[in-house]
This record gives sequence, structure tokens and C-alpha cells, in this order.
Amino acid sequence: MVKALLLLAEGAEEMETVITVDVMRRGGIEVTMAGLKGSDPVLCSRDVKLVPDKALADAVQSGPYDVVVCPGGAKGAQNLAESDAVKQVLQEQEKRDGLIAAVCAAPIALASHSIGSGKTVTSHPSVKDKLTSAGYKYSEDRVFQDGKVITSRGPGTCFEFALKIVQNLQGEEKANSLISPMLLKL
Amino acid sequence: MVKALLLLAEGAEEMETVITVDVMRRGGIEVTMAGLKGSDPVLCSRDVKLVPDKALADAVQSGPYDVVVCPGGAKGAQNLAESDAVKQVLQEQEKRDGLIAAVCAAPIALASHSIGSGKTVTSHPSVKDKLTSAGYKYSEDRVFQDGKVITSRGPGTCFEFALKIVQNLQGEEKANSLISPMLLKL
Ligand SMILES: [Cu+]
Repeated sequence: MVKALLLLAEGAEEMETVITVDVMRRGGIEVTMAGLKGSDPVLCSRDVKLVPDKALADAVQSGPYDVVVCPGGAKGAQNLAESDAVKQVLQEQEKRDGLIAAVCAAPIALASHSIGSGKTVTSHPSVKDKLTSAGYKYSEDRVFQDGKVITSRGPGTCFEFALKIVQNLQGEEKANSLISPMLLKL
Repeated sequence: MVKALLLLAEGAEEMETVITVDVMRRGGIEVTMAGLKGSDPVLCSRDVKLVPDKALADAVQSGPYDVVVCPGGAKGAQNLAESDAVKQVLQEQEKRDGLIAAVCAAPIALASHSIGSGKTVTSHPSVKDKLTSAGYKYSEDRVFQDGKVITSRGPGTCFEFALKIVQNLQGEEKANSLISPMLLKL
């Protein structure tokens, strides 16, 4: 089964996290929501508490994953950017040419860990300058894919972000089949 | 402060729950996510576990609320439809002419508890027949408001659903101010 690892840090944007996890699961992907600090509930950016499936330290034992996903949220992204464990997961994923996906403020974690250097990315507009300063080319598309790096812009682009991941891993037909049952207007 | 009560049952659709809670909080509404069965984590429809803010039995002590919100998910909606506690909350909310909002399959809980009888509602297409059989008029709009009853259709309509609640309680200007930071395309 195709497998995804979602990195869940304190301060993550809960809509970005849950939309991405849920749509990937609807797409037949086995998703592990991994807590950076363990398996206790994680307080997200708007005070929703999400229970990780397991601690990141345990989740990496079951790798590799077909995609590693970083949700945004200003503080959540900062936590991803400062984590050595995240650095290791992302660098290994890049080395094996695996898919990496980051939304909203989370592309700053890619910059911090030198992932996809020089590629074209998008992000929440509020962190655009940090990314161009770090040497990325910048797109204002709602979702942008450059090679194995998929980036996107915010809670309101997350359905498209998640569908792009499903399309990569399960094919376009599968991705398209999810749109109408969710009443999604693209 | 304007207050919302969200009824969280096992099997709730996690995107519908989290998008609605998060957007209402962005809109300055104090939201209580109340667990029907207590305050333990609630297993949602795609295996995301959400921690309620409190048990419904405790949350009702802090009422009344300016809006009572029912997220969907087939099994979650069924649980709302079968709950006496939910019946009591919804019937009191209707008696005091308070706002009631239900999305996706959750309008079947309105039917089950005789809320908004005869009004026009929308819902996930899969439960349309149940609602028309129960005597509701039916709209295919993505969000429909009839008096104090707001209904909507699925995960993909939840941003609009949540913004409609914010618009009712905090005004149109506030609701509109949330759209662009979320990168929402309506
Ligand atoms: Cu649903």
C-alpha cells in the first residue's frame, strides 16, 4: 500500500493537517500522522487538539514513505524548521528521490533543511520573501510541483494540494474520483 | 463574546469539524467542541482523533450558545440523530430562536429531532431523499439559510458554511476579511 508520513508539530494549522490526511486516506493512501514530540495530543494553531497516530521516532522505523508531508501554521512551520528529526527525515526522503510536500508556511522548513534547493516553490504569501532570499524561484500558483517537491499556499488551497499528492501516487483518475463526493468546487 | 457549540460524535467528518471550528475561531467566535460521549478523544470518519474541549454534559452548563453546529460524516450524523442529549440541545436552541447549522449528512439529525420542520435545507446529495421525505423543501445551493437554520453539503463546502455562520454572528465585513489570508477561492 502507498504510504504517507505527515509531520505534526505543535502550532500546525489544523485545517491543513486534517484536510490533507483525510483526502489522502480517501485516495487509498495509508497515512501516518506522526507527532514530533511523541504520541500525546498536539495543540494546533486554532486550539484544536489532534492525536498523532504515533510518535515520529516510531514512525520512521516503518519507513520509507512514498510522500512526506509538512502542514503549515506559522508556529508549526517554525517547529518543523528547527527540528533535527525533521531535517533527517526530509534529507533521507530527498536522497531516495521520494515525494516531499509542504503547504502554507511549511516551505520555510524545506529552506531550513536545504531541501529542493533552487527549485520553484509556492507558499503562504507571508513567507514568500524568506523563500526567495533562500534562493528558490517563486510561483503564485495555488499548487506547484517541481520534480518531487510539491508546495501550496494555505488552508484554502489544501484540497488541491492533497489531490495533487493523490494524483502523483494513485493516478489522476483516482484523484478526480474524490472531487464530487466531497462537493468540491475547483 | 459570541459563542458556538459544536456537537462532536464518533464518526464525524474530521474536515467538516475542523474547518468549521477553525474558521469560526478566526472569526472571533468562542467555540466549544463538545464530545457527545465525554471528553475523551473522538475517532472521526477517516481515523483522525480529535480531542473535545469538554464533554457535552459540561458544555451545556455554559449555554446558551449563539449557534449550535452539527458536522456531518455518515456515522457521525447518525449518532447525532439518535442522541437524546442532542435532541434537547437542538430543541432548546430552536425554542430560543438561536442559530442552528448542519452540514453534509447532519441535516438528518435536524429531521430526526424535528428541527426547522418544513423549512428549505440542503445536505450531502446522498441524504437528500431522507430530507424531502421528512417534509423539508430542498435546495442544491452550496449553503442555504432559511431563517435561523443554515445547512450545507460536504467537506468541500465547509469554508462557505463556516463563513456564513461568521457572517450571521460577526457581520459580513468580518467574514470577508478571513477569505484572503486563507487563500480561499470562492
Ligand atoms: Cu460528509
